[in-house]
Amino acid sequence: MIAAKDSVQPQSSDQLPNSRRVYVQGKIHPQVRVPFREISLSPTKALSGTVEPNEPVRVYDCSGPWGDPGAQPDVTKGLHPLRKDWIQARADVEEYSGREIRPEDNGYLTRGHEEYASQAERRNRHNPWQGQKRSPLRASAGHPVTQLWYARQGIVTPEMEFIAIRENLGREAAFEAAAGARQALNQQHPGHGFGARIPKHITPEFVRDEVARGRAIIPANINHPELEPMIIGRNFLVKINANIGNSAVASSIEEEVEKMRWATKWGADTVMDLSTGKNIHTTREWILRNSPVPIGTVPIYQALEKVNGRAEELTWDIFRDTLLEQAEQGVDYFTIHAGVLLRFVPMTARRATGIVSRGGSIMAKWCLAHHQENFLYTHWDEICEIMAAYDVSFSIGDGLRPGSIADANDEAQFAELEVQGDLTRRAWDRGVQVMNEGPGHVPMHMIQENMEKQLEWCHEAPFYTLGPLTTDIAPGYDHITSGIGAAMIGWYGCAMLCYVTPKEHLGLPNKKDVKDGVIAYKIAAHAADLAKGHPGAQIRDNALSKARFEFRWEDQFNLSLDPDTAREFHDETLPQEGAKSAHFCSMCGPHFCSMKITEDVRKFAAEQGLDATEGVKRGLEEKAAEFLQAGGEIYQPR
Amino acid sequence: MIAAKDSVQPQSSDQLPNSRRVYVQGKIHPQVRVPFREISLSPTKALSGTVEPNEPVRVYDCSGPWGDPGAQPDVTKGLHPLRKDWIQARADVEEYSGREIRPEDNGYLTRGHEEYASQAERRNRHNPWQGQKRSPLRASAGHPVTQLWYARQGIVTPEMEFIAIRENLGREAAFEAAAGARQALNQQHPGHGFGARIPKHITPEFVRDEVARGRAIIPANINHPELEPMIIGRNFLVKINANIGNSAVASSIEEEVEKMRWATKWGADTVMDLSTGKNIHTTREWILRNSPVPIGTVPIYQALEKVNGRAEELTWDIFRDTLLEQAEQGVDYFTIHAGVLLRFVPMTARRATGIVSRGGSIMAKWCLAHHQENFLYTHWDEICEIMAAYDVSFSIGDGLRPGSIADANDEAQFAELEVQGDLTRRAWDRGVQVMNEGPGHVPMHMIQENMEKQLEWCHEAPFYTLGPLTTDIAPGYDHITSGIGAAMIGWYGCAMLCYVTPKEHLGLPNKKDVKDGVIAYKIAAHAADLAKGHPGAQIRDNALSKARFEFRWEDQFNLSLDPDTAREFHDETLPQEGAKSAHFCSMCGPHFCSMKITEDVRKFAAEQGLDATEGVKRGLEEKAAEFLQAGGEIYQPR
Repeated sequence: MIAAKDSVQPQSSDQLPNSRRVYVQGKIHPQVRVPFREISLSPTKALSGTVEPNEPVRVYDCSGPWGDPGAQPDVTKGLHPLRKDWIQARADVEEYSGREIRPEDNGYLTRGHEEYASQAERRNRHNPWQGQKRSPLRASAGHPVTQLWYARQGIVTPEMEFIAIRENLGREAAFEAAAGARQALNQQHPGHGFGARIPKHITPEFVRDEVARGRAIIPANINHPELEPMIIGRNFLVKINANIGNSAVASSIEEEVEKMRWATKWGADTVMDLSTGKNIHTTREWILRNSPVPIGTVPIYQALEKVNGRAEELTWDIFRDTLLEQAEQGVDYFTIHAGVLLRFVPMTARRATGIVSRGGSIMAKWCLAHHQENFLYTHWDEICEIMAAYDVSFSIGDGLRPGSIADANDEAQFAELEVQGDLTRRAWDRGVQVMNEGPGHVPMHMIQENMEKQLEWCHEAPFYTLGPLTTDIAPGYDHITSGIGAAMIGWYGCAMLCYVTPKEHLGLPNKKDVKDGVIAYKIAAHAADLAKGHPGAQIRDNALSKARFEFRWEDQFNLSLDPDTAREFHDETLPQEGAKSAHFCSMCGPHFCSMKITEDVRKFAAEQGLDATEGVKRGLEEKAAEFLQAGGEIYQPR
Repeated sequence: MIAAKDSVQPQSSDQLPNSRRVYVQGKIHPQVRVPFREISLSPTKALSGTVEPNEPVRVYDCSGPWGDPGAQPDVTKGLHPLRKDWIQARADVEEYSGREIRPEDNGYLTRGHEEYASQAERRNRHNPWQGQKRSPLRASAGHPVTQLWYARQGIVTPEMEFIAIRENLGREAAFEAAAGARQALNQQHPGHGFGARIPKHITPEFVRDEVARGRAIIPANINHPELEPMIIGRNFLVKINANIGNSAVASSIEEEVEKMRWATKWGADTVMDLSTGKNIHTTREWILRNSPVPIGTVPIYQALEKVNGRAEELTWDIFRDTLLEQAEQGVDYFTIHAGVLLRFVPMTARRATGIVSRGGSIMAKWCLAHHQENFLYTHWDEICEIMAAYDVSFSIGDGLRPGSIADANDEAQFAELEVQGDLTRRAWDRGVQVMNEGPGHVPMHMIQENMEKQLEWCHEAPFYTLGPLTTDIAPGYDHITSGIGAAMIGWYGCAMLCYVTPKEHLGLPNKKDVKDGVIAYKIAAHAADLAKGHPGAQIRDNALSKARFEFRWEDQFNLSLDPDTAREFHDETLPQEGAKSAHFCSMCGPHFCSMKITEDVRKFAAEQGLDATEGVKRGLEEKAAEFLQAGGEIYQPR
């Protein structure tokens, strides 16, 4: 899950081709400016000689200020705190001194160890964040400061307006043109959305309402003002998460930021920092200060480091302190494995692959060692209070998710899911936003049951799944085994898909693996958006297919999820610049091309002075009629 | 679609690791010997110190004699004609002199051109097939010599018994153990098979019956005796096809054979030779003589070469002659675009991407040029007669398949599908085996409709689809966009999936692309087998997951679809030999491992002297009861 050493080169600074950054301003909140990437296209050269321009295509952009050539942020200073004024304008937070940073936060057992390490560190590199201290914010008005709480009060926050504009891809009008085509499909396929109800135009009020109902969350810690708001819910675009994190080998802080930038450049909507080992606290600080997307963590991982990896030594106090530490830093969502109950642990003993979730294993070990109920479960209400005071969202963990096809949808898995549902309601009662984590390894025919049970038992809270992997037999290709399951569960209603890289089960993903994982999951999410009938999703497909059909090769590359690879693959066969505007491609060669022939079908109609469709139809129908009157050739002797 | 120049290195000769070739003999036909690859596994070392062996896992093997280290075939001599005696024992064929090979068969317009070219050829390389001539076989007893005909007569051919053994993975007994687990799932998910009814044990009689009903085909030209019989039908394992073929650049015949071997090594069940340009005939001869899998072609491609690429100059005579040429060589199935009717062509004029099928475009162009009905349609019965005399199966082409999401499931596509159904029945009436080709580009929610209409309109003949691609926006990754759709349509009942490589839409696939395409499609097919409830499919998943759980790294690699890549990925992070038996992996490090903790769960139970499941359960339930009696910690103040 954790990106390895080669993630160094700052290729994230290269901008994507033929693209410019545009911003759309809010109306309710004029300070809201929503970024998009706009891809310019070349004109269509019709056979008649006329030249028709093609509208630029605006796409959702996760790269934040890093994707704005005009912004040029400084990694050592962090991003501009976009939401700072929005948060303070609500007048329900206070600045306070915050928890003191301790040596063990970074994995050092004493101050002496830490100083020794940081001296060594200083000798090797500049580290401006060392010892730096911000004053965190927390709720001060006696109520939660969560987007859920505001939504319930009927307040449309700037975050909500930002999201409405973002989900509409910056369009003011409804997606009528695209929706026209989709609408016809929807009528033929009434059940295709599996309960997703996506309006043709998403209003800030719709965002508010979905958040108020708990059907969507806006992960946005008040101490992470740098983030650009996004939403996770089944009536919005399907989102993806990429996992990063430092590994045992010392990695510079710039490298960590680079990994986050790399993942968001290719489209990660959120990033989970799964760091283990040393410098967890400092690494996270850097990631947060530079991240335009929500950051999630699994706090039990850091708590475990603080007790030297001995799960049985974990205590509520250590965990609570870790939650506060991370909430003050600005982590936007916490994975908490509170559904792994003592009585569920034995259900896993006969499994093919037992407990494969790291968090689930830690809690199972703790439960066994103490013969006590999971302390995350028993302290749930206190955890909720902390989350509510900072607007950290829950990602309730699935510690008993299946680790193999053989264990899919079993007793242990569903027992935990039911508890996730109870915990969801209790969190909502305390004003905290919630999503639920899901599997894992599940064959195709058992995926839908996961989604249905989650919707029912967890009261429509957003679902956030890892894959699922649809077979166990392809280590090295688990971005594909899981991309299949991810696309399907996204269609069924899953709100966010946690990526799986080709290195899953085998080792640490490098930069190529991270990109491969992100692209595979962008494909899955987009396929799901199309299948759910998202009214704007097909615009990019249509533009790319039109470019392909018209032999506008550069436009085809530029509209693709990965323009670099598309161009590189094309150039392997036909590297000449001229080939990119040629009316043929390497599959068929200059001699013959099926797309060329289709042009001839239309040209034929045009030459007859007839409308491109009706003309051909009429002309041929006459001929066909003659043919049929003559009895056809079918039964004529030759 | 066509593999490029770098396919030279004969890596196909490397055998897969820890594997041996085994054969299972037939009972009805003792001359039948069915090959499997058997992967040996290391024993499980239990915590108690006991060592338990793990049964070797037998897998379906498409590599033929090339995958048998004892066989060592000679490319210049071709494979042993396995089925020769079976065919002749039926006493319904005759040897005859056959059609003379003409210069234009290889793309040369005169004998002079050909001689000039072949002299140049001889200077460069040894070419033993030049001028070689076999006497072909054809039906002589006044009835078709198709597997369909024999099946209808109640005859269980050696081919059918071969297939029954193959589909059972060489097991004599039913898949009870595996089926036990699946059975439970099936009960929970009654509709999961979408009408597939796969018996726990496949008998030769079941094979015969499925073929007789037209629900499955055995592509096996009497002039391709080298092939190892396989079956395409929805009540069997899902199959995949890989496309190869020579490109404009001169490629040696050894290269062509190498491409075919490379594709079948990784699991291609059939191979389509889509060669264009020069030396089509000779290349195909080499491929056929060395291929253990059925070979498909699109005869109109070669016919088009014979008229110098001018579609309007195509005639029935040229086409008929090409069919005979290829039938005599031994091609096992022909893609024939007879459903592209004159009146359907105008339906494509308003499409986003017109006609993207090469065969469809050729026929559309011909229809437009002549204002006549498609000559493949008008000569259907004559085509059937040729197919019946050699047992060439139909793959009725989908020339109007959608080339973009926008065109999916449209009027033109479904109009052609209905005609495919009519043609199917007419071919059956003449004793010819049939499958139908399908799309293309289709979003997820519209895939099932394709399968349902095909089953209904084409009377349950096997469906053979290209993908479908579930989005248009990822050129460079279309093995993934289409792998999603392929897995789903396989589950819904599609019998064979035509692979798509990462180079689709961009250029000629190289050897890496061919492998990437095959592996992505093996994943899709296997995911579909699991979802259809194929009783033996899960054996390999279970074995691999068990190996993973027990840290038998080498076994995990060896059981995977691509052992080389799995091992390479693992070794990037932990190259030391010791790490392959270590009880941890690089994701969590030696300090902590979730799988290790699960072992602890079981060890705990074992230490208590209790049964691994019941023990833990009982012990913890007592504790849990105490906990609950005490009111739990949940509401106790701390």
